[in-house]
Amino acid sequence: MIKVGIVGGTGYTGAELLRLLAQHPQAQVSVLTSRKEAGERADALFPHLRGQTDLHFEAPDTARLQQCDAVFFATPHGTAMTMARELLDSGVRIIDLSADFRLRDPAAFRQWYGLEHACPDVLEEAVYGLPEVNRERIRSARVVANPGCYPTAVQLGFLPLIEAGLVAEGAALVADCKSGVSGAGREAKLGSLYCEAGDSFKAYGVSGHRHWPEIAQGLAQIAGRKLDVCFVPHLVPMIRGIHATLYVPMDRVPDDLQAVFERRYAGEPFVDVMPAGAHPETRSVRASNVCRIAVHRSVDGRHAIVLSVIDNLVKGASGQAVQNLNLMFGLDERCALDVPPLAP
Amino acid sequence: MIKVGIVGGTGYTGAELLRLLAQHPQAQVSVLTSRKEAGERADALFPHLRGQTDLHFEAPDTARLQQCDAVFFATPHGTAMTMARELLDSGVRIIDLSADFRLRDPAAFRQWYGLEHACPDVLEEAVYGLPEVNRERIRSARVVANPGCYPTAVQLGFLPLIEAGLVAEGAALVADCKSGVSGAGREAKLGSLYCEAGDSFKAYGVSGHRHWPEIAQGLAQIAGRKLDVCFVPHLVPMIRGIHATLYVPMDRVPDDLQAVFERRYAGEPFVDVMPAGAHPETRSVRASNVCRIAVHRSVDGRHAIVLSVIDNLVKGASGQAVQNLNLMFGLDERCALDVPPLAP
Amino acid sequence: MIKVGIVGGTGYTGAELLRLLAQHPQAQVSVLTSRKEAGERADALFPHLRGQTDLHFEAPDTARLQQCDAVFFATPHGTAMTMARELLDSGVRIIDLSADFRLRDPAAFRQWYGLEHACPDVLEEAVYGLPEVNRERIRSARVVANPGCYPTAVQLGFLPLIEAGLVAEGAALVADCKSGVSGAGREAKLGSLYCEAGDSFKAYGVSGHRHWPEIAQGLAQIAGRKLDVCFVPHLVPMIRGIHATLYVPMDRVPDDLQAVFERRYAGEPFVDVMPAGAHPETRSVRASNVCRIAVHRSVDGRHAIVLSVIDNLVKGASGQAVQNLNLMFGLDERCALDVPPLAP
Amino acid sequence: MIKVGIVGGTGYTGAELLRLLAQHPQAQVSVLTSRKEAGERADALFPHLRGQTDLHFEAPDTARLQQCDAVFFATPHGTAMTMARELLDSGVRIIDLSADFRLRDPAAFRQWYGLEHACPDVLEEAVYGLPEVNRERIRSARVVANPGCYPTAVQLGFLPLIEAGLVAEGAALVADCKSGVSGAGREAKLGSLYCEAGDSFKAYGVSGHRHWPEIAQGLAQIAGRKLDVCFVPHLVPMIRGIHATLYVPMDRVPDDLQAVFERRYAGEPFVDVMPAGAHPETRSVRASNVCRIAVHRSVDGRHAIVLSVIDNLVKGASGQAVQNLNLMFGLDERCALDVPPLAP
Repeated sequence: MIKVGIVGGTGYTGAELLRLLAQHPQAQVSVLTSRKEAGERADALFPHLRGQTDLHFEAPDTARLQQCDAVFFATPHGTAMTMARELLDSGVRIIDLSADFRLRDPAAFRQWYGLEHACPDVLEEAVYGLPEVNRERIRSARVVANPGCYPTAVQLGFLPLIEAGLVAEGAALVADCKSGVSGAGREAKLGSLYCEAGDSFKAYGVSGHRHWPEIAQGLAQIAGRKLDVCFVPHLVPMIRGIHATLYVPMDRVPDDLQAVFERRYAGEPFVDVMPAGAHPETRSVRASNVCRIAVHRSVDGRHAIVLSVIDNLVKGASGQAVQNLNLMFGLDERCALDVPPLAP
Repeated sequence: MIKVGIVGGTGYTGAELLRLLAQHPQAQVSVLTSRKEAGERADALFPHLRGQTDLHFEAPDTARLQQCDAVFFATPHGTAMTMARELLDSGVRIIDLSADFRLRDPAAFRQWYGLEHACPDVLEEAVYGLPEVNRERIRSARVVANPGCYPTAVQLGFLPLIEAGLVAEGAALVADCKSGVSGAGREAKLGSLYCEAGDSFKAYGVSGHRHWPEIAQGLAQIAGRKLDVCFVPHLVPMIRGIHATLYVPMDRVPDDLQAVFERRYAGEPFVDVMPAGAHPETRSVRASNVCRIAVHRSVDGRHAIVLSVIDNLVKGASGQAVQNLNLMFGLDERCALDVPPLAP
Repeated sequence: MIKVGIVGGTGYTGAELLRLLAQHPQAQVSVLTSRKEAGERADALFPHLRGQTDLHFEAPDTARLQQCDAVFFATPHGTAMTMARELLDSGVRIIDLSADFRLRDPAAFRQWYGLEHACPDVLEEAVYGLPEVNRERIRSARVVANPGCYPTAVQLGFLPLIEAGLVAEGAALVADCKSGVSGAGREAKLGSLYCEAGDSFKAYGVSGHRHWPEIAQGLAQIAGRKLDVCFVPHLVPMIRGIHATLYVPMDRVPDDLQAVFERRYAGEPFVDVMPAGAHPETRSVRASNVCRIAVHRSVDGRHAIVLSVIDNLVKGASGQAVQNLNLMFGLDERCALDVPPLAP
Repeated sequence: MIKVGIVGGTGYTGAELLRLLAQHPQAQVSVLTSRKEAGERADALFPHLRGQTDLHFEAPDTARLQQCDAVFFATPHGTAMTMARELLDSGVRIIDLSADFRLRDPAAFRQWYGLEHACPDVLEEAVYGLPEVNRERIRSARVVANPGCYPTAVQLGFLPLIEAGLVAEGAALVADCKSGVSGAGREAKLGSLYCEAGDSFKAYGVSGHRHWPEIAQGLAQIAGRKLDVCFVPHLVPMIRGIHATLYVPMDRVPDDLQAVFERRYAGEPFVDVMPAGAHPETRSVRASNVCRIAVHRSVDGRHAIVLSVIDNLVKGASGQAVQNLNLMFGLDERCALDVPPLAP
């Protein structure tokens, strides 16, 4: 059994790791940390896990974590980078669900997160954990930067068109994205209240959101050149789910758009290209690691419009983290993840 | 008192007309028709109106409607155009909340609605009821085509930028729109069920939606030339509200974007330009006739991004219809409409 | 114009007072306090009120409040009782939406709220502001204790049966109550998050809730004797609304249950007895001061079952407070409150 | 592998059977019927099952079903009883999720369902499929009547107190129950629309609901005598979940209420007695076959109050059906059901 540690287990991504790993045949959580809840049973905080785990939260302790084979960071940004070096030196492999190792450029990290990066050398070796792009590099990585939720949905949607060279020269891509409220985390914030977010809809972060540089970096890597992209996130009165609506200006929209996607994702265990004409719903991937994608032509014939949905807590966070764990430890990539979504 | 008739009063827009007109000091509903519910009390169908109305539904009868000063059509498309001529001939003025008189071109109507237009001559004289564009023509109109919900939010959002000549030459506009479920009407349809639309998000009609030609026609009228526009509607798990996120590519984004909007809408009773940096929420206009708008620059500096919200049943339907009634009958445009929105 | 002050205007009941009073023809808010938001515009916190108010929050200042004719307290418990004496001495009349003056017995207040009562003499003269029970005393009251939300729905539902002497001797009443999340206030609390309260249902406070002694006291006053009552509140994933399901064991269920209710509430402007067999929905009173009630017999024939719904922020708080203001100042009781509910 | 047929697979309980059985190591769905959708792929109707099943709907055909080892009926009442005899004669065992075999007395069936029972002899041998009560009889049953959703939550909640003889003589039990909208099924009905059921709460069926006789029959079997019970169902704006709030009048409430429950359910794989003072949330059992229960004393000390939650589509329908399948075929009762619930 792979011994797993989870640092910062009191948020939604931490709880989701516990839920997913409870079903994992070859990995077991042995350390679960929380400064605030130390001593408390995990299932006291998360009663849905009663009967699924006997773990207690414990105060974070490097020595304890060093006994793990792999450590997940389900913390806000700024924590993983201060603990990474010590864990690596003990042979522990790291999957960071926070932003600490996502942006390749420490200057960009400083600009968007307001912090000096604590270990640029580890950043240097970190692999961006989007298996559909970096599968082989993930297998041997010591540190995986688990992608952000929006960037996952957006990159998987644009990917086939960019790789096929279909984006019009000089054109700007538009990524209009919508997220359920769990994306804001399990913190008592006014804007996340039922009566503030419920029965309403709004955009946020229009003039700049931290997932923008991650998206821009990812698309540039795929394209081999800088691509302009407009990214606007929105808050949807639902619990889980991200829907990315992607607008790709083309010089000419090819006839085989559908085939471009089907070919690219043939064999991918967690990307489902829907039939032509489909409109994927976020609930069709609820609780699941699948990304479902459909591609359309616009009425004016000048754009491809891609619809890409994920569960932000699974493929957009903890599920992709387990997928990366599976890759890193040579397991079947689908271990603990091949379960049907929950609908309705 | 202006005597008002409502044809097709059993849907959400019909109920909303009853709610709004219950507060109108100078108009009174005297005829309310429904083939299916004839004989039934209105407040039996709509218990929230108990104590606010004593009306009964009656079978549609032209003679009864001819005694009205104005008749609202809150019917599906295809009804108003068959009754319009007779009512006009009796001096009744018409406000059609359906699509029958929205598209100027009967051929476009045929293409998008699959019907031959029943009275092209009436269509000829009909005025598109967007007061912020056609206020003076509405005052004297005999037939007003009340705009669609999406087209209202979209046109009011693009309007100042188009009028200011700021749209980049040859560029395509993007209108990514989100609507609450009430936009699908009060019909027992599978896709509108709580368990189908709840806790989920999806796009629909991506390859062609009937509001697209209406938007394209409106923008062309404003611009004085054809403008390319990509329009994608989405379904939000909320009851009321439309949020339009509008992407306007510019050759150069001017410094005074905010002023462009503030100048254009100064004095408009039902358009509220939010402060710079704001993100309007749909709930901030719930139950109200106000359209709130905010404008941003994109991070890449190449786009203006406009956020425009309305209540789809009020400014997007029945409220705008009452606003048009007020204009047509020389009343204060705000009669019955100057009430605070409901939040939370 | 009656000059009104609102102490503690940043919560949902404060915002709701602003919304309702914006439409009041004879009262005007002239002072609005908040320690935390002092200097901020009210409509910056509550964008739905843009165009409806120009007020700024100010730090609470007794001298300013003493210039008002009436002051509403929309504060947590413990504040009104420390400011009441000084305001009364200046001739200001008080409507307290908190719990400070609800329980007649200072010892009960201490037991349930954990505070010594700061002004038992003012408590002595305070009138419990349920107009359907205490209308005449409210008219002349200097201090009105605005009832809690659950107690309003529960008392109005039990009232006709208790007054008619129909409750079985020695039997216990059951009040199973359900509230929307706005009842928990506009505070950033974990349990009120969208992702904690959404798509779920639970009871809370089963072993003791502060509205229990208020209910017990009210029912005892109506009955002229102590009545046993079991009260369980529940949290519903909706924004506004309370539904009380009341079980009344009877020695024999009379034939004219419906008439008992209709007679008792004939002429009451804000209690609507629904037709026999009806099931009132909370949305049928959304945004409105109406309480809708239906009464049924149980299948076993041994109970009356009463269904009573209110909007917790209106009849359950701010609307009833305005109703009390109207009574205290000799106005039409319906001023600013006779508006249709919002559905859907 | 056990060959399983599902009759009527287009509703929510049918889809849920497919979801659960997709994970079953020893059972496989080989026939899936729907008159209306014959020929259609199951995952075209239920896109969340893409990649989990290759089944097509087929028209119901007895010969095909006779090749199964077990057949689930996920049909409205009235279907199973017309097909049961023929299947039994072929050695097929039946698990009926409809009401056809729940009421022991054909006269009661006629009274509540308005149909003459088609096979009273089969009814005679049918076993009521509540494993916590009838486990041994289920193992050998040829026909299992899968309990209704409300009756499951209600009976499991009352059971320990009734068995312990704690219900006061002559007293009436109260079962105030709340269900998510999926309980109304996947039919296009007005009352199940998002805009009708959303952001609102109501009771229904107060004067008589079909689950009442089933509850009364079950409680009588447990008690060995008739017990009066008041049952009121309510509709909650959520997708899944039932919450039963149960009021049990007692002559004296014993000190060890908690132990009564813990003892009774020790060893039960799918009943979780929460710690004293707990308030189970429906989401804590979402997607799971667990029933979570907490017991409280009322403030007045005269009642036990039991809170019992289930997922209406799992323990209240398809999950319990799979549990029964496991028992009938000698498998581990937890097969395919021992998965963590989904929260948030």
